[in-house]
Amino acid sequence: MLKFNQDGLIPVIVQDIKSNKVLMLAYMNAEAFKKTLETQKAHFFSRSRNKLWLKGESSGHYQFVKEIYVDCDEDTLLLKVEQIGGACHKGYYSCFYRRLEDKQWKIIDKKIFEPKKVYKEEE
Amino acid sequence: MLKFNQDGLIPVIVQDIKSNKVLMLAYMNAEAFKKTLETQKAHFFSRSRNKLWLKGESSGHYQFVKEIYVDCDEDTLLLKVEQIGGACHKGYYSCFYRRLEDKQWKIIDKKIFEPKKVYKEEE
Repeated sequence: MLKFNQDGLIPVIVQDIKSNKVLMLAYMNAEAFKKTLETQKAHFFSRSRNKLWLKGESSGHYQFVKEIYVDCDEDTLLLKVEQIGGACHKGYYSCFYRRLEDKQWKIIDKKIFEPKKVYKEEE
Repeated sequence: MLKFNQDGLIPVIVQDIKSNKVLMLAYMNAEAFKKTLETQKAHFFSRSRNKLWLKGESSGHYQFVKEIYVDCDEDTLLLKVEQIGGACHKGYYSCFYRRLEDKQWKIIDKKIFEPKKVYKEEE
């Protein structure tokens, strides 16, 4: 029923279930979707590393999936999650920590962790 | 600075600025981004119709853009908008009107308009 794209992927919006903050956009293949359902932890397909990726596997910053929504066209998913630590590998709670102001991207959030201390490998 | 994909597009998450409800995922090309900045109304690139698309052009259901965010990788945008009418061409406020329950997609929102009455052409 889900429509995966020509690369076998579907975009997934991840939202904090408590604050409703949008945390990130990632991609799942069919296996990542299956693993997410089985474990209730968000799994994605890493396009840069070309492999299945358990979010938090190196950082401990897991996303516990509470609700899963599909859009009208069945080609996008929305996960509502409990986020451990922060979602962004740059050290922010959300990947959307920059807002357009006067034609420039301005950082509007504070770092909550130091990536070098958290990642054994780049996530 | 924005990273458009191999099709010249960037995915855009649209979120209601008042309720923080996630409304839809759509795609912009460079022109749609420019038009959005100029007009403060969300413009997208329609992949099905292969053309620039002013959201609301046939329905009147415009999205007035209040804030624009970019993610860490600069390959996804987040718009916070004031949504007129409903975002979904199926008649719902949000495109994410179905939630996974007992392995089935269950409609959890109410229709707020009748698409046949609103659309002169399919949006």
